[in-house]
Amino acid sequence: VSDDLAPPRGDMDPEVFRREGHRIVDWLADYFAAPERFPVLSRAEPGDLVRALPAHAPESGESFDAIFEDFKDKIVPGITHWNHPAFFAYFSITGSGPGVLAEMLSAGLNVQAMLWRTSPAATELEQVALGWLRQLMRLPDAFEGVIYDTASISVLHALAAAREAAIPDVRTRGLASRGLPRVRVYLSAHTHSSADKSAILLGLGQEAITHIACDGHHAMRVELLRQAIAADRRDGVMPLAVIATVGTTSSTAIDPVAAIADVCEVERVWLHVDAAYAGVMAMVPEWQHHFRGMERADTVVVNPHKWLFTPFDCSVLYCRRMDVLRQAFSLVAEYLRTSEAAPVNNLMDTGIQLGRKFRALKLWAVLRYFGADGIRARLQEHVALARAFASWVDAADGWERLAPVPFSVVCFRHHPDGLDDEAALERHNAAIMDAVNRSGEAFLSHTKLDGKLVLRLAIGNLRTEERHVRRAWDLLTNAAAARQIV
Amino acid sequence: VSDDLAPPRGDMDPEVFRREGHRIVDWLADYFAAPERFPVLSRAEPGDLVRALPAHAPESGESFDAIFEDFKDKIVPGITHWNHPAFFAYFSITGSGPGVLAEMLSAGLNVQAMLWRTSPAATELEQVALGWLRQLMRLPDAFEGVIYDTASISVLHALAAAREAAIPDVRTRGLASRGLPRVRVYLSAHTHSSADKSAILLGLGQEAITHIACDGHHAMRVELLRQAIAADRRDGVMPLAVIATVGTTSSTAIDPVAAIADVCEVERVWLHVDAAYAGVMAMVPEWQHHFRGMERADTVVVNPHKWLFTPFDCSVLYCRRMDVLRQAFSLVAEYLRTSEAAPVNNLMDTGIQLGRKFRALKLWAVLRYFGADGIRARLQEHVALARAFASWVDAADGWERLAPVPFSVVCFRHHPDGLDDEAALERHNAAIMDAVNRSGEAFLSHTKLDGKLVLRLAIGNLRTEERHVRRAWDLLTNAAAARQIV
Repeated sequence: VSDDLAPPRGDMDPEVFRREGHRIVDWLADYFAAPERFPVLSRAEPGDLVRALPAHAPESGESFDAIFEDFKDKIVPGITHWNHPAFFAYFSITGSGPGVLAEMLSAGLNVQAMLWRTSPAATELEQVALGWLRQLMRLPDAFEGVIYDTASISVLHALAAAREAAIPDVRTRGLASRGLPRVRVYLSAHTHSSADKSAILLGLGQEAITHIACDGHHAMRVELLRQAIAADRRDGVMPLAVIATVGTTSSTAIDPVAAIADVCEVERVWLHVDAAYAGVMAMVPEWQHHFRGMERADTVVVNPHKWLFTPFDCSVLYCRRMDVLRQAFSLVAEYLRTSEAAPVNNLMDTGIQLGRKFRALKLWAVLRYFGADGIRARLQEHVALARAFASWVDAADGWERLAPVPFSVVCFRHHPDGLDDEAALERHNAAIMDAVNRSGEAFLSHTKLDGKLVLRLAIGNLRTEERHVRRAWDLLTNAAAARQIV
Repeated sequence: VSDDLAPPRGDMDPEVFRREGHRIVDWLADYFAAPERFPVLSRAEPGDLVRALPAHAPESGESFDAIFEDFKDKIVPGITHWNHPAFFAYFSITGSGPGVLAEMLSAGLNVQAMLWRTSPAATELEQVALGWLRQLMRLPDAFEGVIYDTASISVLHALAAAREAAIPDVRTRGLASRGLPRVRVYLSAHTHSSADKSAILLGLGQEAITHIACDGHHAMRVELLRQAIAADRRDGVMPLAVIATVGTTSSTAIDPVAAIADVCEVERVWLHVDAAYAGVMAMVPEWQHHFRGMERADTVVVNPHKWLFTPFDCSVLYCRRMDVLRQAFSLVAEYLRTSEAAPVNNLMDTGIQLGRKFRALKLWAVLRYFGADGIRARLQEHVALARAFASWVDAADGWERLAPVPFSVVCFRHHPDGLDDEAALERHNAAIMDAVNRSGEAFLSHTKLDGKLVLRLAIGNLRTEERHVRRAWDLLTNAAAARQIV
């Protein structure tokens, strides 16, 4: 019997943990040194892993060696490598070295930070790290922050707070059977779908959502927002919240936040700013004008796991009326009642989730290791790479760019002379994208803008260099050329 | 300049990651070997960490060495050690060796598993691991599982599915201004507070909740449930869901699930079973009778991060009508549209969170490393320790036990002769608990049962041995004696 096997009682022997932990660190270090040895997009077929693994749990324990071998042989081929420098799909993200190291510590400590006392450092480090980030993003002191898992949960809480602020007694009386006026949440045509899901969950329903049309740059048209609110008021519909986005998912478009904030101020409507992806660019002086008005929002979401080098998951909601959020959610069961010498913040009071992971540790480690200047330099490097790619698109015959590039995402497509049928163009570009993705050397995704299928190249990985972007461009032009020859 | 500092661009050098990672593994191995060198409950005072850290992020990056030093010097003293073998508060949990190792890999891979294609292995390993766990828990094949972060989110989805099933078009039309009947969710007086929070979030409101009174063992009285539903039907109130708990948070009481399932079947009401803590005991043949009826539920929650040795966070919702859950939440934005050769499961379709961590890896590693038999043996060991403690309480003069011990939690208090005023007893027991917790050698929490303050001793850590439980008992009896002398 190997000493790798679980002892008859208790946890893994700490010396086995030490040996296996060192092996994993070595594997990860080698992986980070050369993620390009793997295809970016997994080549697994549906069901591959299910077929490769037993249908039942083992009765007897197995060595961690065997588990780690299966990890390498069976799991890794089914991984799409978000660490690959040529991961250009969706929003490209990076869980950096310091972030991963901190996450190892967090996993080891296994802290559940529902209450201040269940680990004072977890609660207070969240306060410290979110204070640092808030200052870097130039948000006023009035904003208090809380870490959730995902932007979906952040926007859910933002809208829940808006509902709490607008509808008296909603917490006790709910929404049904009480003669409430209809309510409305205003999004743009490009607001992230998690806002729609939140409205569903909150019992508002999709009919409570108005998608305001956008201008030629995919930004919300404020005059239409103003008109929609006025029309709703005339019809007895109560405006609940407006969501403005800085950096939409499709094209990183920028809603005119300051003008929207003016409307919300006059109308006394909750303003939520979705800066989940782009919010970190508010740290960079030359980009701050894009965020004008964000400081007047009621809530702002920014995701360190997107473009702040923090391992997934870590989403931050800043709220300038945290009392409203607490009023919506605080509910202290007897078994969770505590008393401290001084007032403390209990994270469970700021949301639906009682259990809270020690997520602040990785964010704090990332902010310290790179420093504000180091972070700004990396963000600007990513923007520069995106702009370089955009310039190649702009200069190439038969290619067109379909949106501005304020951040690190380029929307473009191949549009050869004479091919003007939209359905044909869609098939053509989808085929180009599939060819590039099948190469394993780069991974892009798509969206639709004004009904047109558009390819997206998103930069956000710390390992991405110009050669990777250049290679993606070569793959794209080669794929387009190959289709034209056929 | 140390080579620890961040390079001018890109991520941490992989060789620095390797060196720092090895140091962290060594620190963790030493920590796991002797968590008792730390006090269980942190001795930090409110504000200690905030005062110890700078008010602003550093402009220049710092070495990871410096970060790790601060971790050890400033963060660790503010940690309440959930790994300590004498952590007996709330529900005692364990993030075991194999679980932590798997979490390290997951942090390194940094997979976001929203879509099958964004890492096929993450989606399929979730299917495999949840299939294994389902079989071990003797749930029928009809139950499909999904991993969320916390039980709060699991019950939120269970009630959202119940709402979807009961109220036509709630997704589009919401709850307000449509002449819906009032709705009702039935809990017991001891159902976890996350159910109340979910009802608030879903727009049902706290008035939609009826807390059914419990019997002398803190279990829901089914005849009262039946009466409450009948009375609501007479009043035109629509029953939406019943939550039955196997292993309540206060006293691990067991609601009569089979009888409740009978009611739900007749009344056609959604049945959710909260087995977040105790559900794993359904693996053990001698305990299966406690779970009778669970197989007839619509949804069941069990938390591997509670009593299945899996690092926080990992909560599993089993649903026998996953189509309802998908119908409630599926919403596919264009930029998330994919096509595969065969039908695949996209995790984003089963809930509010678009982003999904690769949590299945740690659960799978734990199930394999310990094996079904190894898990059962450890669970039974924990129950045996709790029963030993209960026997000491039962045999001791001046102590009383206030609830049965079906699992691994003991509810008890000191009740010396002649002290019968409830307020005085409450102060007395709170003082005993505080004295024990201040010792740093054990950490207990409290609850209230039938208006009485009750101390709880919860076993769930893999490192807990009889000597730790014995020491807690000594600390308690010493603290009680010290108060009587004074």
